[in-house]
Amino acid sequence: MSTQTSAALFDQDAVRQAVDATLTHYMSGQTRNAHHRGLPQQSLQALSNFLNSGGKRIRPVLCVAGWQAADGAGVPEPVLKAAASLEMFHASVLIHDDIIDASDTRRGQPTVHRQVSTEAAIIIGDLALVFADDLLHNAGLGPEQLAAVLPVADHLRADTLHGQYLDISHAGEPPADPGPALKITRYKTAKYTIEGPLLLGAALAGADNAVRSQLSAYAIPVGEAFQLRDDLLGVFGNPHDTGKPALDDLREGKATVLMALALQNADSAQHRTLRRHVGNPRLDDDGAGQVRTILTDTGARATVEEMITQRRQNALTTLNAADLPTHIRTALRSLAFSATARTT
Amino acid sequence: MSTQTSAALFDQDAVRQAVDATLTHYMSGQTRNAHHRGLPQQSLQALSNFLNSGGKRIRPVLCVAGWQAADGAGVPEPVLKAAASLEMFHASVLIHDDIIDASDTRRGQPTVHRQVSTEAAIIIGDLALVFADDLLHNAGLGPEQLAAVLPVADHLRADTLHGQYLDISHAGEPPADPGPALKITRYKTAKYTIEGPLLLGAALAGADNAVRSQLSAYAIPVGEAFQLRDDLLGVFGNPHDTGKPALDDLREGKATVLMALALQNADSAQHRTLRRHVGNPRLDDDGAGQVRTILTDTGARATVEEMITQRRQNALTTLNAADLPTHIRTALRSLAFSATARTT
Repeated sequence: MSTQTSAALFDQDAVRQAVDATLTHYMSGQTRNAHHRGLPQQSLQALSNFLNSGGKRIRPVLCVAGWQAADGAGVPEPVLKAAASLEMFHASVLIHDDIIDASDTRRGQPTVHRQVSTEAAIIIGDLALVFADDLLHNAGLGPEQLAAVLPVADHLRADTLHGQYLDISHAGEPPADPGPALKITRYKTAKYTIEGPLLLGAALAGADNAVRSQLSAYAIPVGEAFQLRDDLLGVFGNPHDTGKPALDDLREGKATVLMALALQNADSAQHRTLRRHVGNPRLDDDGAGQVRTILTDTGARATVEEMITQRRQNALTTLNAADLPTHIRTALRSLAFSATARTT
Repeated sequence: MSTQTSAALFDQDAVRQAVDATLTHYMSGQTRNAHHRGLPQQSLQALSNFLNSGGKRIRPVLCVAGWQAADGAGVPEPVLKAAASLEMFHASVLIHDDIIDASDTRRGQPTVHRQVSTEAAIIIGDLALVFADDLLHNAGLGPEQLAAVLPVADHLRADTLHGQYLDISHAGEPPADPGPALKITRYKTAKYTIEGPLLLGAALAGADNAVRSQLSAYAIPVGEAFQLRDDLLGVFGNPHDTGKPALDDLREGKATVLMALALQNADSAQHRTLRRHVGNPRLDDDGAGQVRTILTDTGARATVEEMITQRRQNALTTLNAADLPTHIRTALRSLAFSATARTT
């Protein structure tokens, strides 16, 4: 595998920069418009800051990859705007998610609701959702492209929200059955972060069923592995790398496969310790240390690592057999590693 | 004016029933789909209950009126679905609004966030917004209709959210200048409730500029009058009729034209009383009584009544001169009275 070839043919950094520029341009237009009409600009400023605060732009990158996977050429402006609309929707999801999880920081900065107020952040998240529509609707897509892409976007959004609802339904006291956590993983991450963006890009290029099936068969295991890695990092990761406080996931009592496996395999003393600490909003470093030990000692951590490896392998096998352009296969192969790697 | 002729030609009740049926059918489909995929149905049930809990369906009715105003014939299925999507968006707005205002009841029932949780209600509101898109995108509109209607829908939504942001920016300590309250009235109500739905329906019928201008010239004053009436009812109305607790607006310290005028005209003792009670979350009936007396004694209440009458008159004058189908003129004339009437 030559990452240089991949970079030359599918330049992820260039896509990221173009998406950033698209978002900045869009927000400038909205801010000018609000100024002109005497409307509040604080909301727009908060959203702009959030959009500028980092983020890997993985969804826009995958959208462009999906476009090229289905033989779309280059990165035309309408495709870029459609890709940027995914990032705008993501801002909406994260802003509301941070309210729901009562998170204080995101990407190393105070969350939007800590900067303004919960009330204001609810509206700012709604505004981002409406802007995501606006970006997509005004991307300059042809009538056929628009007709193909709108249902994909609507499904992606609804699936994400269903996944979030499942997530909060099980938070606080995570079940010892990994089933619900796997379903959350599938809807909230695999479909939302990997499959949806690829299929959206593919829809723009008028992909046939064969291409769509291949992309899905790659996307679901990679997306699940990505979330399983995220769950591990949420407990064992370095807050300096992850950008979020080390105790948030445990305090919230997030329903993860990791936690379900630990609860399943725990002896009664370990089980009591987990139930005492996980979902306790006042959990301290000492308690978190005890939980980490149990997650390791029960074998849950190792099993999740195996699940990640297995899923990545499935995705790579699918990819090798897939009838996709070589540079896209290379880029997706590279993503399967980077999205599931140990440290970031 | 013959309301019988109007009823025969533009049957608002029939439109309401058809919109209700469209929403029920849509939600059944979503629920079946969620059941099939093992996704949570509590969220969908809460949204269905909310949609079934009443509401005047004024926006869908106006959307159909806008369609017929621009010479659209009858109430075709795609127009009905586009109209229903406005009601779905409205559900999203109200569910989030009730969280923002910490309201306990709506339409005489517990608000969604009191039935489930604030966290769940944020997601349910988001879901309603995504469903509003889905309804509109899959209404079966032709490519030209879709291209015409999407920007109108996006503007309507963004304007509404800007109006809400303005609203919360000024709540708590309402200003003595009626300017901000009038702007909130314009964005949060006049554009959202009256102008936007009329223009959306008109866009579906490919309305020209002349028709659009006439509809706007009618809609803005009626919408402002509607909100001014709502502000009066929020303070002086009977909770049994309005469906919301009598003290909510005062406790919240809502920035209304009514309150601005009272603050402007109050003597220093009255001013102190208003500042003590308005925006106080523990305001009691006695305090509310004092505020009502001041709103009356300063002439604010009477001035707002005059403003309502004046705006209604402006709308009627516009309507009489407008080149619109007779049955639509009749229906809009009737609406100008019912939306601004004293008791409901």
